[in-house]
Amino acid sequence: NEIPHNEKLLSLKYESLDYDNSENQLFLEEERRINHTAFRTVEIKRWVICAMIGILTGLVACFIDIVVENLAGLKYRVVKGNIDKFTEKGGLSFSLLLWATLNASVVMVGSVIVAFIEPVAAGSGIPQIKCYLNGVKIPHVVRLKTLVIKVCGVILSVVGGLAVGKEGPMIHSGAVIAAGISQGRSTSLKRDFKIFEYFRRDTEKRDFVSAGAAAGVSAAFGAPVGGVLFSLEEGASFWNQFLTWRIFFASMISTFTLNSVLSVYHGNAWDLSSPGLINFGRFDNEKMGYTIQEIPIFIFMGVVGGILGALFNALNYWLTMFRIRYIHRPCLQVVEAMLVAAVTATVGFVMIYCSRDCQPIQGSTVAYPLQLFCADGEYNSMATAFFNTPEKSVVNLFHDPPGSYNPMTLGMFTLMYFFLACWTYGLTVSAGVFIPSLLIGAAWGRLFGISLSYLTKGSIWADPGKYALMGAAAQLGGIVRMTLSLTVIMMEATGNVTYGFPIMLVLMTAKIVGDYFVEGLYDMHIQLQSVPFLHWEAPVTSHSLTMVGATVWSICPMLLPSSLPAAVCCPGPSACRCCGMVPDSLFPHKVFVERANLSLVQRRLKLKDFRDAYPRFPPIQSIHVSQDERECMIDLSEFMNPSPYTVPQEASLPRVFKLFRALGLRHLVVVDNRNEVVGMVTRKDLARYRLGKEGLEELSLAQT
Amino acid sequence: NEIPHNEKLLSLKYESLDYDNSENQLFLEEERRINHTAFRTVEIKRWVICAMIGILTGLVACFIDIVVENLAGLKYRVVKGNIDKFTEKGGLSFSLLLWATLNASVVMVGSVIVAFIEPVAAGSGIPQIKCYLNGVKIPHVVRLKTLVIKVCGVILSVVGGLAVGKEGPMIHSGAVIAAGISQGRSTSLKRDFKIFEYFRRDTEKRDFVSAGAAAGVSAAFGAPVGGVLFSLEEGASFWNQFLTWRIFFASMISTFTLNSVLSVYHGNAWDLSSPGLINFGRFDNEKMGYTIQEIPIFIFMGVVGGILGALFNALNYWLTMFRIRYIHRPCLQVVEAMLVAAVTATVGFVMIYCSRDCQPIQGSTVAYPLQLFCADGEYNSMATAFFNTPEKSVVNLFHDPPGSYNPMTLGMFTLMYFFLACWTYGLTVSAGVFIPSLLIGAAWGRLFGISLSYLTKGSIWADPGKYALMGAAAQLGGIVRMTLSLTVIMMEATGNVTYGFPIMLVLMTAKIVGDYFVEGLYDMHIQLQSVPFLHWEAPVTSHSLTMVGATVWSICPMLLPSSLPAAVCCPGPSACRCCGMVPDSLFPHKVFVERANLSLVQRRLKLKDFRDAYPRFPPIQSIHVSQDERECMIDLSEFMNPSPYTVPQEASLPRVFKLFRALGLRHLVVVDNRNEVVGMVTRKDLARYRLGKEGLEELSLAQT
Repeated sequence: NEIPHNEKLLSLKYESLDYDNSENQLFLEEERRINHTAFRTVEIKRWVICAMIGILTGLVACFIDIVVENLAGLKYRVVKGNIDKFTEKGGLSFSLLLWATLNASVVMVGSVIVAFIEPVAAGSGIPQIKCYLNGVKIPHVVRLKTLVIKVCGVILSVVGGLAVGKEGPMIHSGAVIAAGISQGRSTSLKRDFKIFEYFRRDTEKRDFVSAGAAAGVSAAFGAPVGGVLFSLEEGASFWNQFLTWRIFFASMISTFTLNSVLSVYHGNAWDLSSPGLINFGRFDNEKMGYTIQEIPIFIFMGVVGGILGALFNALNYWLTMFRIRYIHRPCLQVVEAMLVAAVTATVGFVMIYCSRDCQPIQGSTVAYPLQLFCADGEYNSMATAFFNTPEKSVVNLFHDPPGSYNPMTLGMFTLMYFFLACWTYGLTVSAGVFIPSLLIGAAWGRLFGISLSYLTKGSIWADPGKYALMGAAAQLGGIVRMTLSLTVIMMEATGNVTYGFPIMLVLMTAKIVGDYFVEGLYDMHIQLQSVPFLHWEAPVTSHSLTMVGATVWSICPMLLPSSLPAAVCCPGPSACRCCGMVPDSLFPHKVFVERANLSLVQRRLKLKDFRDAYPRFPPIQSIHVSQDERECMIDLSEFMNPSPYTVPQEASLPRVFKLFRALGLRHLVVVDNRNEVVGMVTRKDLARYRLGKEGLEELSLAQT
Repeated sequence: NEIPHNEKLLSLKYESLDYDNSENQLFLEEERRINHTAFRTVEIKRWVICAMIGILTGLVACFIDIVVENLAGLKYRVVKGNIDKFTEKGGLSFSLLLWATLNASVVMVGSVIVAFIEPVAAGSGIPQIKCYLNGVKIPHVVRLKTLVIKVCGVILSVVGGLAVGKEGPMIHSGAVIAAGISQGRSTSLKRDFKIFEYFRRDTEKRDFVSAGAAAGVSAAFGAPVGGVLFSLEEGASFWNQFLTWRIFFASMISTFTLNSVLSVYHGNAWDLSSPGLINFGRFDNEKMGYTIQEIPIFIFMGVVGGILGALFNALNYWLTMFRIRYIHRPCLQVVEAMLVAAVTATVGFVMIYCSRDCQPIQGSTVAYPLQLFCADGEYNSMATAFFNTPEKSVVNLFHDPPGSYNPMTLGMFTLMYFFLACWTYGLTVSAGVFIPSLLIGAAWGRLFGISLSYLTKGSIWADPGKYALMGAAAQLGGIVRMTLSLTVIMMEATGNVTYGFPIMLVLMTAKIVGDYFVEGLYDMHIQLQSVPFLHWEAPVTSHSLTMVGATVWSICPMLLPSSLPAAVCCPGPSACRCCGMVPDSLFPHKVFVERANLSLVQRRLKLKDFRDAYPRFPPIQSIHVSQDERECMIDLSEFMNPSPYTVPQEASLPRVFKLFRALGLRHLVVVDNRNEVVGMVTRKDLARYRLGKEGLEELSLAQT
């Protein structure tokens, strides 16, 4: 049981990303030597890497899409054939058994690979990427192995009929691809291509991971601008025009690659009609504009979405706490996933069985129409919702002409799918929560639109598809609480900008209402995992906290021994004066100079040593320092960052917070007014302070 | 002649914005006292202000649009009537005279108000807003008077038939509105509404100005997301989710207000069809997609746009140098503006006169068709380009069916308009360069499309409208060199996201090609005005520069006298130790304590003193300090920022640059390793270093 039971803790297992490892003398010297031509070469390499990130992310998205389409199609055909067969001669329970078994076994495979091979591939990966971009190192999160498990896992989850989407995991996939390509090597494959060595440092890698995440969003929703905004919202502490432009380039390439390949695959090679894994389809703004009178209605829908989202999150919170306590063994996790798969199939089957909502088959675009007990030439409307990938169901709810769905069907579907999706999120499978949220919202939104249409006696503006869209936005906003990026993603997925204003209003309302009750789903899960995550701003009431009494982590002259994450080198007879900072990554290499002959350096560290070891420097404890070596000295001046950032001890918490956030720092030396070191502030010290119900709370560090 | 002749200077007249004026003890104490409720009130006020910014910016845009439409319509009708009259009976030179005189007199009024009343209202205002958001204080740039002159000026320029647009100035207008509203008072009107006093500090004001600029973009192009990105690209050094979300809110409100009011004005109250001052019209993506083969063609167009843009900028550079040297008296400026207006009318007239491009009037949507020498039922095609506001001409070039324009017409028009627009930019009138750039590009783009269609014998994909769009993007990108924000603005103005990828490629190519020759138009003008503008990153070759030898601006114990912009308070017997920083805004208030009775404070400064005086603190030289007062002492501890940012003197220029940029600093104290003050770095010290042709260049400070 790795995760602490009490959520008011910070876990020690999450390291900060070492943003300033590249600030030591070796790196600085390299930068000093760099001339204009070399700079240009590096810049071109950055663009090439971004193009590659875009292309590969697009291809991975294509792969997932095509495999899911084929496997899911196969499954639906088998089950449909079976149901059709048994409808006539009775014994539909066999069909149920077949369906549930099929789903459970597919999900079992998906869950086993995640639980036993790479647990970090579970879920959508968005909380993990948020943490990574925030500056927290989560073990294994950007490894090739994770990518493979993620891709296979998400295919199996979707094919297994769980209430999940394949969009969220694309963001994680894009991030892994970016991390891999930009480093020019793979630890999982043990291959080093000896390229892009310049980028083997945290700042550069993180920039590429931002681009990868953006490319993932872009491929998932056909939303390149939304992708850029997602990356910026989550990650970029410091906005840089060139970086943003590169991120946008990667996003564009990603959606373009997906579009081209899928167009070729679907046989209409040049039409470029599939910019994303999910496309909301074309909302015709001539037919379907909105009027000013509708705006209060949209705001009301935002309120409903906020409340339902908060309910979803609260239920999921309890469920997650339960899981942390009782379901932490991998085999139990697999069993739970199978159970959910079987229950999902059963619920679907029962609902289809009980439904009496028949629609004429003529003129409809249903992929796998199920006649069941309907008259000839008709199909069961409830079955379309369950006999489709969730993506298709969403689009159907948006675009099916008025009258395609019975209000009862929609109501039952919303209710059931809400609980199923809530139960599913947090299972040990790779899966996203975007599409289920959209689907729940689209269902109740359409229901709302139909009711409105009844009430107003079929007024022209009560098109249920539009309300389905707004409901989807409200529900998703209420669950994930993203702001600008989600608005833009929704705008781009609908393909036109007309709905921008109402979508923004709906998302804003949903966020405000939802935040009143409980925080967003991703933030909740980040907090449950005790990650030292830094939010946008320091808690408002923390202005009176200063750095006086900062933890003294390490002070010379006992520079060398044991657990010392970042030493402050301070010559001077009496007190320790801050004259530089030495990275911890230096010590494992044991560069000692014997006390006797100070001028003789035993082994000089090279920049290459840092780059080859990056990012997995051996922990300091793993180095054996013999008694003889303890007598030796090190010449630190070469490896030292001569001008570390310092703050006076009178500095307030918000000011230090701003420095950390704006500069992406890992630790900051606290000095008094003689520049004598009084301590060190780390990211965990800042993340400890949270605004709780009764004002400022201080969390303690978990000992796990 | 206020502007220095040599462009390799930094002007002293531009102050930095005092971002850290709010860091003194008084402000810190207020923040310490703030509790959760107070914080929430402040937050709600911020939202209210953003909504007001959006509404007012939208209304101003409506006002400009409606007035321009009516006045320009009136003018065109008069001239058209006159031409029609004289076409039959000869004597068209009277018409020319009428047209030229009308234009010149309207432009004269527009130029007089700018040149004599508020010169800072000249041009589009985008360079000024870029500087403001970058952290440079430009006198008068956000005053109400400037807004009034700007609005009147832009109306008169457009009505006067200059080759200008009304979009750029909207950005400036939005910024002024934001600055005014957020401070709750107007210096021009001498009214203080005693509201929003909390926001009377530079950081807050700048955030609102960002929102205002975004609202301006949003109203101009119907591009709320583009507006946000513009603000972020130009201004935000530190990305904050809440701030961005508020900026987006202001943008959305702005376009929505414009849309509602214009819809009502045009009589179709609820259809919301005018999201911006210019709408590119609907590009139907079913009819007008693009195919993969076209991408190299688009890239080629980007190259052309880059070259033409660079040519435009180079010509304009020479022209601006000429203007700085010889046309600096207001009356000369007015005369030049009138000359340009008359020449523009003459060129237009001659071209219409010489054109033999007649098109059937039936089925066309030309607003003021001019028959001239065409047969009955036909109109002169060249006249549509000149007998329309440039906005309408752009849309016509995008959407008129193939065959509406003769290649010769387009070629001549491009050539003439190119030089006219180039001559016009930099005149002492309020006007933007966006629309003329788009128009030039649309003209040659359409010409290019037509040629391509000839060459490929009318292949289906050679729709001239699409090429007009790409040409417009290429030309605009080649001139202004904006990146992400321009892509999104173009995407939003076309109303669909299909063209996102080709537009991005075109803009990227245009920027790369253009940057090879000469920098962007706005940056060029910023540099010509010697503004201490900080770019995104320090020059690449500046890593070897350190802060050793930083200018010692002021060191205790001679704390008080004369010109001391920011004092470092340093008790200690021998050397000066940095223990805090005192804002210069303190001294004008003369808070002395007599040497004799140190405990007695004569007058305590209050937070209100700062807020009431903000942002126009009297210059220190204007305060008379008597000999007696010189004997007095000040208790600075209260007004001191106890933890100013400091850097060690070994810090390299890029590191200091990053601190300035990320934290929005004004000055930074340089200390040695004993924390003794060795100097002070200001924004001007950083802006001095530029990457020239032969490596790093150091500019000197102008003595003007």
